[in-house]
Amino acid sequence: MKQIILTGDRPTGRLHVGHYVGSLKERVKLQNSGVYDEIYIMIADAQALTDNAEHPEKVRQNIMQVALDYLACGLDPEKATIFIQSMIPELTELTFYYMNLVTVSRVQRNPTVKAEIQMRNFEASIPVGFFCYPISQAADITAFRATHVPVGEDQMPMIEQCKEIVHKFNTVYGETLTDPKIVLPENSACLRLPGIDGKAKMSKSLGNCIYLAEEPEDIKKKVMSMFTDPNHLRVEDPGQVEGNPVFIYLDAFSKPDYFAEFLPEYSGMDELKEHYTRGGLGDVKVKKFLNNVLQAELAPIRERRKMWEQKLPDVYDILKAGSKKARETAGKTLEDVRRSMKIDYFDNDNLLKM
Amino acid sequence: MKQIILTGDRPTGRLHVGHYVGSLKERVKLQNSGVYDEIYIMIADAQALTDNAEHPEKVRQNIMQVALDYLACGLDPEKATIFIQSMIPELTELTFYYMNLVTVSRVQRNPTVKAEIQMRNFEASIPVGFFCYPISQAADITAFRATHVPVGEDQMPMIEQCKEIVHKFNTVYGETLTDPKIVLPENSACLRLPGIDGKAKMSKSLGNCIYLAEEPEDIKKKVMSMFTDPNHLRVEDPGQVEGNPVFIYLDAFSKPDYFAEFLPEYSGMDELKEHYTRGGLGDVKVKKFLNNVLQAELAPIRERRKMWEQKLPDVYDILKAGSKKARETAGKTLEDVRRSMKIDYFDNDNLLKM
Repeated sequence: MKQIILTGDRPTGRLHVGHYVGSLKERVKLQNSGVYDEIYIMIADAQALTDNAEHPEKVRQNIMQVALDYLACGLDPEKATIFIQSMIPELTELTFYYMNLVTVSRVQRNPTVKAEIQMRNFEASIPVGFFCYPISQAADITAFRATHVPVGEDQMPMIEQCKEIVHKFNTVYGETLTDPKIVLPENSACLRLPGIDGKAKMSKSLGNCIYLAEEPEDIKKKVMSMFTDPNHLRVEDPGQVEGNPVFIYLDAFSKPDYFAEFLPEYSGMDELKEHYTRGGLGDVKVKKFLNNVLQAELAPIRERRKMWEQKLPDVYDILKAGSKKARETAGKTLEDVRRSMKIDYFDNDNLLKM
Repeated sequence: MKQIILTGDRPTGRLHVGHYVGSLKERVKLQNSGVYDEIYIMIADAQALTDNAEHPEKVRQNIMQVALDYLACGLDPEKATIFIQSMIPELTELTFYYMNLVTVSRVQRNPTVKAEIQMRNFEASIPVGFFCYPISQAADITAFRATHVPVGEDQMPMIEQCKEIVHKFNTVYGETLTDPKIVLPENSACLRLPGIDGKAKMSKSLGNCIYLAEEPEDIKKKVMSMFTDPNHLRVEDPGQVEGNPVFIYLDAFSKPDYFAEFLPEYSGMDELKEHYTRGGLGDVKVKKFLNNVLQAELAPIRERRKMWEQKLPDVYDILKAGSKKARETAGKTLEDVRRSMKIDYFDNDNLLKM
């Protein structure tokens, strides 16, 4: 069986280092691993509209930003099909029919949906489209016959719901859809970066993100202002590394080489952490190291991004070609689905057999 | 502005006299009135699947039955576009985007949805697709820019929900969709026929329907077994005409001419009812009259149906051509919708204006 990946992002803002360590870095690795036959990367504008219906501009304006971030990180249109969700109407048709296979109470019990509803303060006024997004996601995954879906651990319930839909469909209408499996990031430290203010999640509205496109001086400013251990007041005080954003970022980004280059007096993370915990290591020193690491990691990304920014029409063509290819794939799956459901009336003369 | 009608039926069984007096008769009248520029009649298979997902065969097998019933009643493919809902994928795309404009609690408050959920004993296990059918119906209505939707009074809340979606869409994305209005049947007695057993609704599972395709002897058998006033035991007893199915059917079907032909000793319904109420008029006599009336009304329908049954490939072609035309119309509306929502990325270069 073909090994196929589907993954993507909602275009509601530029991507940041949290996206990078949480998924983009891994995605590029998977792309270059040679293990996968097809890779689909979806810019999920239709999903973004489910809770941004009144701000279509915001979604539209971020499509190119996300595409640029993708290319900047090393996603390669020769190896991965980058496409825009709303350009594949087949996905809405699959969603429509899958909606018959899931009960309202099942969606209500979905922990991810519950958490997201709370996060958005929706409660009584959840848009139906947002409520149904696990079903729409199942359409996205199955349309491309994805075998592997690389997402964060928090998305596990969504994949479960997708698998349920696949099993239900195949039971009712006969073996048709492909069962996907989740691919979690290898490095568990990478699962989720906190904001630079120590808040659990980076968010544009909180202004606590470091963006992939960030300029060097802004990276430095943000790193030097990062939240650390609030009890680590003087250099000689013992400090805490657990839950300390500076160390979480270092765990995600630092490599042995960076110590040799920027902080040769330490052999590696263990020694650095040990010194900080014991006391005698100042936040400024650690932040300066983190700044050097981030500058080293982000410079090539920023440069590739600037290069693509000069070639926007090429990016447009990449998205157009990717969407065309994605549509062909989804169209084939939809044909299979319609045949299984026997709603392919005008492709045969079954209607005449009364 | 063009006057456009959209209406239709779920293909979950053959149509019966309840459908005829409740909507089909009126529909043929509207068709022949010359008032409407376009008339779309939808065989709502996709909607039927929302609560019949596990019985796609049942839905499929009834598509031709409903089409035959339509043609039998006098719907004319030269004047009305008869089409199959699932052949118009544009409807699922509209539904998908409208879902963002309606909240879950708003659908929950819809009285028709509430009643239907209760009727189907769904309660805790409502399929999401069924729950969302008011939104899907709004897609059907607006896709054809229907100005007039002839339905029963019980469907009023559905049209209200559609109008809300139209207003919301036009407010958020700019004037795009057409506001529909409901057309109620002129004769209020025709709104709904009870079953022959006196139960409020005709239903295949209760076996209390008289079908349009029914053979003469079966019509007679059913009429003669009809529920009447249970207190009208002897001919001389006073009888009640209110809520008495035999009289409700007569109100719906009898015409002055039928008295002259089949029951010349009465001048019309008033006199017949008066006698029954007073006492001295037996049920058998009234039922025989109703049988004659129904035979007269249904004979031409049955004959036309038999004629079309001999030409199934022609019916297939009518549905195919109707679906093609309907798809073109819906496609144009969808284009307008996508343009208003600015998700027409590859039709212009707005994506490049960052």
